[in-house]
Amino acid sequence: MTSAEGSFVVFTPSGKRGRFHEDSSLLDAARSLGVDLDSVCGGRGICGRCQVVVAEGEFAKHGITSRADHLTPLSEPEARYRERSGLAPDRRLGCHARVTGDLVIDVPPESQLHRQVVRKEADAHPIDVDPVLRLRYVEVREPELADATGDLQRLIEALDRDWKLTGLSADPHVLASLQQTLRSGGWTATVAVHDDSTIVAVWPGFHDVALGVALDVGSTTVAGHLCDLHTGEVIASAGAMNPQIRFGEDLMSRVSYVMMHPGAETELTSAVRGCVDGLLAELCEGAGVDPTDVLELTLVGNPIMHHLFLGLDPTELGGAPFALATDEAVHRTARELGLTAPNAGARVYVLPCIAGHVGADTAGVILSEAPHDQRSVNLIVDVGTNAEIVLGNRDRLLAASSPTGPAFEGAQISCGQRAAPGAIERVRIDRDTLEPRFRVIGDERWSDEPGFDATGVTGVAGSGIIEAIAELFLAGAIASDGVIDGSLAARTHRIEADGRTFSYVLHDVRGAPRLVISQNDVRQIQLAKGALYAGCRLLMDALGVDTVDRIRLAGAFGAHIDPLYALALGLVPDCDVDGVTSAGNAAGTGARIALLNRGARDEIEGVVRRVEKLETAVEPRFQEHFVGAMGLPHATDPFPRLRAAIDLPAPREAAAGDRPRRRRRRVDEPERSSS
Amino acid sequence: MTSAEGSFVVFTPSGKRGRFHEDSSLLDAARSLGVDLDSVCGGRGICGRCQVVVAEGEFAKHGITSRADHLTPLSEPEARYRERSGLAPDRRLGCHARVTGDLVIDVPPESQLHRQVVRKEADAHPIDVDPVLRLRYVEVREPELADATGDLQRLIEALDRDWKLTGLSADPHVLASLQQTLRSGGWTATVAVHDDSTIVAVWPGFHDVALGVALDVGSTTVAGHLCDLHTGEVIASAGAMNPQIRFGEDLMSRVSYVMMHPGAETELTSAVRGCVDGLLAELCEGAGVDPTDVLELTLVGNPIMHHLFLGLDPTELGGAPFALATDEAVHRTARELGLTAPNAGARVYVLPCIAGHVGADTAGVILSEAPHDQRSVNLIVDVGTNAEIVLGNRDRLLAASSPTGPAFEGAQISCGQRAAPGAIERVRIDRDTLEPRFRVIGDERWSDEPGFDATGVTGVAGSGIIEAIAELFLAGAIASDGVIDGSLAARTHRIEADGRTFSYVLHDVRGAPRLVISQNDVRQIQLAKGALYAGCRLLMDALGVDTVDRIRLAGAFGAHIDPLYALALGLVPDCDVDGVTSAGNAAGTGARIALLNRGARDEIEGVVRRVEKLETAVEPRFQEHFVGAMGLPHATDPFPRLRAAIDLPAPREAAAGDRPRRRRRRVDEPERSSS
Repeated sequence: MTSAEGSFVVFTPSGKRGRFHEDSSLLDAARSLGVDLDSVCGGRGICGRCQVVVAEGEFAKHGITSRADHLTPLSEPEARYRERSGLAPDRRLGCHARVTGDLVIDVPPESQLHRQVVRKEADAHPIDVDPVLRLRYVEVREPELADATGDLQRLIEALDRDWKLTGLSADPHVLASLQQTLRSGGWTATVAVHDDSTIVAVWPGFHDVALGVALDVGSTTVAGHLCDLHTGEVIASAGAMNPQIRFGEDLMSRVSYVMMHPGAETELTSAVRGCVDGLLAELCEGAGVDPTDVLELTLVGNPIMHHLFLGLDPTELGGAPFALATDEAVHRTARELGLTAPNAGARVYVLPCIAGHVGADTAGVILSEAPHDQRSVNLIVDVGTNAEIVLGNRDRLLAASSPTGPAFEGAQISCGQRAAPGAIERVRIDRDTLEPRFRVIGDERWSDEPGFDATGVTGVAGSGIIEAIAELFLAGAIASDGVIDGSLAARTHRIEADGRTFSYVLHDVRGAPRLVISQNDVRQIQLAKGALYAGCRLLMDALGVDTVDRIRLAGAFGAHIDPLYALALGLVPDCDVDGVTSAGNAAGTGARIALLNRGARDEIEGVVRRVEKLETAVEPRFQEHFVGAMGLPHATDPFPRLRAAIDLPAPREAAAGDRPRRRRRRVDEPERSSS
Repeated sequence: MTSAEGSFVVFTPSGKRGRFHEDSSLLDAARSLGVDLDSVCGGRGICGRCQVVVAEGEFAKHGITSRADHLTPLSEPEARYRERSGLAPDRRLGCHARVTGDLVIDVPPESQLHRQVVRKEADAHPIDVDPVLRLRYVEVREPELADATGDLQRLIEALDRDWKLTGLSADPHVLASLQQTLRSGGWTATVAVHDDSTIVAVWPGFHDVALGVALDVGSTTVAGHLCDLHTGEVIASAGAMNPQIRFGEDLMSRVSYVMMHPGAETELTSAVRGCVDGLLAELCEGAGVDPTDVLELTLVGNPIMHHLFLGLDPTELGGAPFALATDEAVHRTARELGLTAPNAGARVYVLPCIAGHVGADTAGVILSEAPHDQRSVNLIVDVGTNAEIVLGNRDRLLAASSPTGPAFEGAQISCGQRAAPGAIERVRIDRDTLEPRFRVIGDERWSDEPGFDATGVTGVAGSGIIEAIAELFLAGAIASDGVIDGSLAARTHRIEADGRTFSYVLHDVRGAPRLVISQNDVRQIQLAKGALYAGCRLLMDALGVDTVDRIRLAGAFGAHIDPLYALALGLVPDCDVDGVTSAGNAAGTGARIALLNRGARDEIEGVVRRVEKLETAVEPRFQEHFVGAMGLPHATDPFPRLRAAIDLPAPREAAAGDRPRRRRRRVDEPERSSS
């Protein structure tokens, strides 16, 4: 009951509490206590963001009885909102329900301004939704003959009065449409305010949709994730081929193209910007949303894609000292970057590059994986044409890029192809007969299951090549020095002579390409995995550790490969098998975090400055490690943790019968992961 | 001589002095004393801006002997500078001449960072040259493999180190060309820094030209003044017709055009921007300078031109409450405004509008005339299609716009034309015979002088109409109520019947248009001058004054009209004739001040906020004054100061013989002023 000091109100789940007099709205009460209760319309009963529920009953802990009728009866604006937008019977609008007695008020998650959005990846902490862009509803003073204050200044005055936003400025395009907007909204408007400092868009009346897109601009594909900036949810994701491919498959051939055709960087820039612009339009069309509601974009990419997207000549990144044009985060408007699909006031935040070889994509990986927050030592590898490697924890963080080449992506492999439907992604080889079975992207069946279409197989993806070579190694058909054992040709047609070396026939049916793992294919993988391993060891030497606690495999390659095979082939240093996991599309997730949480931008900018950069090209120990890592890990190699999980073959040329004696752990059928 | 405490050095003209040890350069010494000594290259002997002269001799006042050899001998960089750029024999570079004994050092005006530039107008204070844009020469650290710091960050680091500029950011176009610029300059560069905060342009090596253009965008003409931002001097001026004229001669017809053709404001915007862009290119070409050295622009204009240039719909300015889109100064990049001629990083500063009818042009007038700095009460009128009126002093400042219509510009006058070659600008009429003599723009001769080409007369400019009517009034041919005395037709063919009224034939020769001042023409001028006078009186009422100390006539009209005639016709309130002067193109001068002096921007923004705006349309006293001011000032009107200078006719219908008895002061032939 109301006491002389007012009624007692407790908010859950925060537990914040206080006494309030009769004229207090629940929104006012929440704000005065610092309870996280949302509002876009500023308490005018329009936005419905401040919905709360009265928890009815006796609350002995607080010594009160909470009842629904301890609030003023349903107000006119609440009734209107219920009519227009729907309002559950037990819900009230915090801005119009006033306290008349003791209450326990529950603030549901969707009414919290600072909500969290759960990530798909296992053991990833949720993202706190606190975007740099906010919508603010205001009522603007009408112009008067006696007062020459401009429309813009009266808008800014209203934002100061109602939202305590001071020193605001406005994007030029806002000024151009402001007069019309304010008048058509009857002097009410919703304003998109960027970073509490710039008005980037204005709508007449009330508007409650603000969208953002996190972009991951890769050499091969460009991916975009359309997000609701209020809920933090991903509304739609889409990808497109990077049209720069016509200037060169890999990054270095694109840089060469620019070097040989001065000024061509503008062509490459137009190509990738056009691709992103189209992707933005497609994302919005597919999701049925208005592209002018897209107000915020974040972008990650490797240094060369970063430079080309920003219109910077990447030539300097093609050779030592690999100088970046800028190593800080870049802020642009979408229009400055030639993006026409989003709102004319949309802002683009490009995460910082770490070094000439370690880009904003790696900054995204760090933001997503947050090794700098952890006590345990994390090794994160993002394998593409180069492998970016990050090692460390809260005390120190090191990064390097290792020149693995494109073998892990299926390039320079005779039967290789990009990960796409029809590509073999999983391989199992019988230890005795050397007969394979496999699975292709786009089909959940194994090749020995009924209904599998053997003629639909088009090639072998990077993960399939890794698995095939690892399986052949574990079956003894490939020795620890990488040589395919030709003597087995006598026993099975799967091994066949190929000039002076031997090959393994993985797939050979009429109507489909003949897929063969050649000796050269094995060599390419050995070179790539040697480079990756050497890069990891170089960072471990620099950090002064012999083992790591956790290995995270980022990117598409990391998502497709079975961690056990990565270990078995010696791609990464020895680790508990359970400690090696996929980080998913960590770079893209990092872009999404920077999109949804403004603090994450300061965070990654600070971390990037602290990262110690190693340049593999000039570290003598890299060469040493590289040479030492060319062979496949065998039973006497220092891989105690791997050996705890799996029997490794003996060193040197394995004869046909040199199969592992006993498998301590079966290589389980991996969970199918979507391509 | 050098004492234990070092040598005694006195700088003139500042008189600042101190003791310095042998290793002090004169530049260091000057800086430590706060002596205003310029340097762009940061003391590297490249720019030559720190030139000084040793004053030799005994200086009893300071107790020292100053000698040229009290400086270290000519250094290698000084010799190189002398060779390359010329250096007078008595001059030294302050950055390389070091103190070895007592000295008196003169800093010549051109070596002062904060110099002054003298204005053409009489009694105008000089402009302190302290532009918002400065050039800074730096040597940038080269990139290293071991350090991932970007090119931009190393440039910013050098600007911080050498110029104490912190927190700089860079224009996007700067980043795009930075890599190439730094490398081609051998890691030296000159940086244009705007407002100590933004890098807007970078040149390889040393660059010492920075230009700006002050723009006065009028309804009829667009004028530009190309200035050297270092010396403050005007390099070239040029004008162009505003191509918006095809959408309507006067402003309101352009606003009507937009109202009737929604979206047409973009056409009008393109037209005026294109005109300005062309003018900028023309100015640079004419002056033989590189347009990419144009880095800073300022702009004034009436509210409608201001809005149209900025791409804002002017419709709201066409009717009450005349709401401005913005009443604050506007900052844009030249590119945002579609200006392609200047440097891609050039900035545009648009002075603030004061009210819906009193624009940035009036802000320019205030900045130029500085009534807010004065004790005396100033009345400033800027006559165009509307008349902008400013009244006040350091205590209070008021402004209004008065709807004079275009009559003062020669429009709506039967024989009127714009001020252009061939237009009559000066008129004298014989008090007895009513025979006229006149002068046309573009010819220094009077019409009664030998060689005058009577067939080259095309019409009458606004100032010519004012003078003709005033002369007819003083000759008694027009009564104080404005009626042309038809009885004079009996005495001279110059007065002729024209229906029920009479006209005065000003010019009638074969081969030229017949130029006649009709009764309606007199009425148009009476309406216009009544509105102007009423506006002035309204402000005087509001300020509570009956007389003003000074009247300044701004703009082209003010430059052409003889102040005495302005008074005699009653355009402005009574004033000592000597107190009425032309302010020249004050709006354009205001733009030039804002271009050359950064502090002037804060100044005018502050003053504009303090100006009290009166809206003539809704002030009942305006109508009263207007009706009362339709007549011409006669001998019993309250114009004591005018009457002290000139005999005024008696009131009421003047008969033919009612001529002034005696002229106390001859109306002197005015100085020819260029058209």
